[in-house]
Amino acid sequence: MAKTELLYGLHSIEAVLKNHPERVLELFIQQEREDQRIEQLCQLAHNFGLVAQRLQAKRLDHLLAQEYSGPLNHQGVVARCRLQPVLSDDELASYLSTLTHPPFLLLLDSVSDPQNLGACLRVADGAGVDAVITTKDKAVGLTPVVRRVASGAAESMPFFQVTNLVRTLRGLQETGVFVVGAALEAQACSIYKVNLQGPLAIVMGAEGKGLRRLVKEAADQLIYLPMLGSVQSLNVATASGICLYEALRQRQL
Amino acid sequence: MAKTELLYGLHSIEAVLKNHPERVLELFIQQEREDQRIEQLCQLAHNFGLVAQRLQAKRLDHLLAQEYSGPLNHQGVVARCRLQPVLSDDELASYLSTLTHPPFLLLLDSVSDPQNLGACLRVADGAGVDAVITTKDKAVGLTPVVRRVASGAAESMPFFQVTNLVRTLRGLQETGVFVVGAALEAQACSIYKVNLQGPLAIVMGAEGKGLRRLVKEAADQLIYLPMLGSVQSLNVATASGICLYEALRQRQL
Repeated sequence: MAKTELLYGLHSIEAVLKNHPERVLELFIQQEREDQRIEQLCQLAHNFGLVAQRLQAKRLDHLLAQEYSGPLNHQGVVARCRLQPVLSDDELASYLSTLTHPPFLLLLDSVSDPQNLGACLRVADGAGVDAVITTKDKAVGLTPVVRRVASGAAESMPFFQVTNLVRTLRGLQETGVFVVGAALEAQACSIYKVNLQGPLAIVMGAEGKGLRRLVKEAADQLIYLPMLGSVQSLNVATASGICLYEALRQRQL
Repeated sequence: MAKTELLYGLHSIEAVLKNHPERVLELFIQQEREDQRIEQLCQLAHNFGLVAQRLQAKRLDHLLAQEYSGPLNHQGVVARCRLQPVLSDDELASYLSTLTHPPFLLLLDSVSDPQNLGACLRVADGAGVDAVITTKDKAVGLTPVVRRVASGAAESMPFFQVTNLVRTLRGLQETGVFVVGAALEAQACSIYKVNLQGPLAIVMGAEGKGLRRLVKEAADQLIYLPMLGSVQSLNVATASGICLYEALRQRQL
C-alpha cells in the first residue's frame, strides 16, 4: 500500500479537497461540529464520493498522536491522504512548459525553519507565484507546521525540491527566466530600480545566512530592500512578501 | 525602587545599549564568551560607565528563570534594565510634534500574538516608520517573545499603547495625517492605486478578525492587497511589511 499521511485543520483540508481531492482517502470530522464551514467541507468531499466519518474529539486527538508529537489543533477535521509526491527537477521543467504566461517563481536557498517556509508559501500564493522551489538538502519539507502556517497554500502551491539550486537556476536562465537574488552586497541594486516584469525567479536566502556564494554568483541581478532603521535584516517570509508583491505591482502595470 | 526587567539576547542588548543606555543597570555576560560581538557590547557598556559582570552560563539561565518561564536562549548576554515606560496618548502627541518630516506611522488594531507584534516592529524599523501604535486592551505589549522576534526593534522603535484607537486616529487626522486601513471591503482600493506620500498612518487589523468596524469607519481610505491564489489573507506582519514598503517606495520617488 502506498504511504499516507494525516492532514488536519480547516485550511489544509479545504485546500486539499479543492486542489487535490484524489489524494483524500478518508475524512474524519468531530461529532459535535455542525457549522457552515464544516458543512462546506462535507459537501466538497461528497462531490468526490467521500463520506465524512464522525468521531469524538478525543478520537481525533488520538489519531493525530499516532503520527505527530505534541498537541495539535485539528479544528475538528482530519483527513488521511495519499502522500504528496515530492516534485523534483524533471517535473519542474515539464510543469514550467505547461504555463501559458511568463513564469513567476520563488526559490528558497536552504530555508530550514518550518514557520518561515509556511509563511513563504502563504505569501507566494497571495502574490500569484507559479511555484515555490527549494533545496532537498538543509531545507525543510512540507511538515505539519509548514502546512498549518501556510493556511492551505501548501496544498495549492506547486512545490518543488531540487538537488542542486545553482543547476536549476542555470536551467531557468536558459529558458529566458531573469534570476534575481536578494543579498546585501556592494553590487546589489535597490529592488525598486530593477525591472521585474517578464519571466522571473526571485531567490531568497536562509535565516541569518542569506544566499550561498555560488547562488549569488549565478543570479543575473542581486537586489536589496532598503533598511532605514537599526535592524539589519528582515525575516525571510516578510522579505519574500515585499519582493514578490513589488514584482506583482510591476507585472500588473 | 523602580521596577526593573531582564532583557537578553545579542540583538536586544545591543539595541538597548545603543538607543537607551540610561535604562541599563547591570550587564551580565557568559564567562567563556569572548567573540567580537560580545567585545563590542562590552565597549558600548564601558562608554556608558557600565562594567559587564562575567557569569557562568547556568547562572545566566537561573537569572532568567526567576523572571520568565520556559527555556530562553540568552546567547550569553543578559541585562537588568529599568522598565521601558509605556508611552500613551499624551506622549504620542508630543513625540509627533518633534518630527521634522511628514510622520509615517503603523497602527495595529488589537494584535494579540507576540510573534506578530515582534515581526511588525522589525519590518516597521526596516521601512523607516516613526512609531508603532497599538491598543492597550486586547493587545500584547513588549513581552520577551516580542523583543526576541523584533531583533532589536523593540528597543529602538518608539512604541505607544493608546486607550482608544479611533480617538487617536481622529487626533492624527486633525494634524493632517492621512489614515489608511487595510481591509477586504467593497469600498477598498488596491494599495497600488493610493497615494501614500505625505503624513501617513497605516492601520492593520488583528489576526483573523481584521479591523474593527469603528476603526474601518474612521479611516480616510480602505486599501487591500491583491490576493491572486487560494489563500484568503496574509499574516499581519507580512501584510504590514508589504504595505509599509509600498509606502516607502512611493515616499522615496
